[in-house]
Amino acid sequence: MILSKGDNFKESFIVTDDVYNGFIHVFGDRNPLHTDEQFAIGKGFSGKVMHGNILNGFLSYFVGECLPSKDVIIHGQEIKFPNPVYMNDRLAFEAVVSEISEAVGVAIIKFKFRNIFGKIVAKGEIQIGML
Amino acid sequence: MILSKGDNFKESFIVTDDVYNGFIHVFGDRNPLHTDEQFAIGKGFSGKVMHGNILNGFLSYFVGECLPSKDVIIHGQEIKFPNPVYMNDRLAFEAVVSEISEAVGVAIIKFKFRNIFGKIVAKGEIQIGML
Repeated sequence: MILSKGDNFKESFIVTDDVYNGFIHVFGDRNPLHTDEQFAIGKGFSGKVMHGNILNGFLSYFVGECLPSKDVIIHGQEIKFPNPVYMNDRLAFEAVVSEISEAVGVAIIKFKFRNIFGKIVAKGEIQIGML
Repeated sequence: MILSKGDNFKESFIVTDDVYNGFIHVFGDRNPLHTDEQFAIGKGFSGKVMHGNILNGFLSYFVGECLPSKDVIIHGQEIKFPNPVYMNDRLAFEAVVSEISEAVGVAIIKFKFRNIFGKIVAKGEIQIGML
């Protein structure tokens, strides 16, 4: 196993215009919460709320590209979105290996995304398998 | 609440070249499992394995665009990937409202994605809030 319990990782992600527009182009989610500033403000937000699943795309990059081995696959993941993400938010991502099952080559990684105010905008865990 | 326990929904999604290339363009996950046919075959798969988080993008579309109200937000979600998805797989998506909490305006939706052979390639649940 190339991971050990307690290993931790830090990355930084920005929900740029390109990421936002690219996500909408690929998946077609134009819900007004994400695309209509006035609608979102009317619902009590500060502006258009970015799609939570953009953060799942960042998780894909983290697992596929940032771990010490490329021989990994995602078995499953869960995520909660306690606070909104807005356009151009810079998100500090922290992840820690919380469990390892050497025998079956499985690791659990817990993660958090925080905005520049230190608020947790998403947290959860990913189960990965070693290939 | 515009949803009731037992309400169910069906959609169909295809992991086209455009979706696959668009996801990689937006998020940059070029892990060889997803991009190197021979690597993936060497690991026991039939070809390049599509990113699991492409399916989370389809979930975004489902919640944002396919429910009977647009006044919804995802609070959290979980997903497991028991079988691989390959390029151009057509996925049958089924979702059912499994719990409703009227008082707090929250619904739990359980979902499955199946490939054309009827195999479940992903399943999980989404918690949504009414805005």
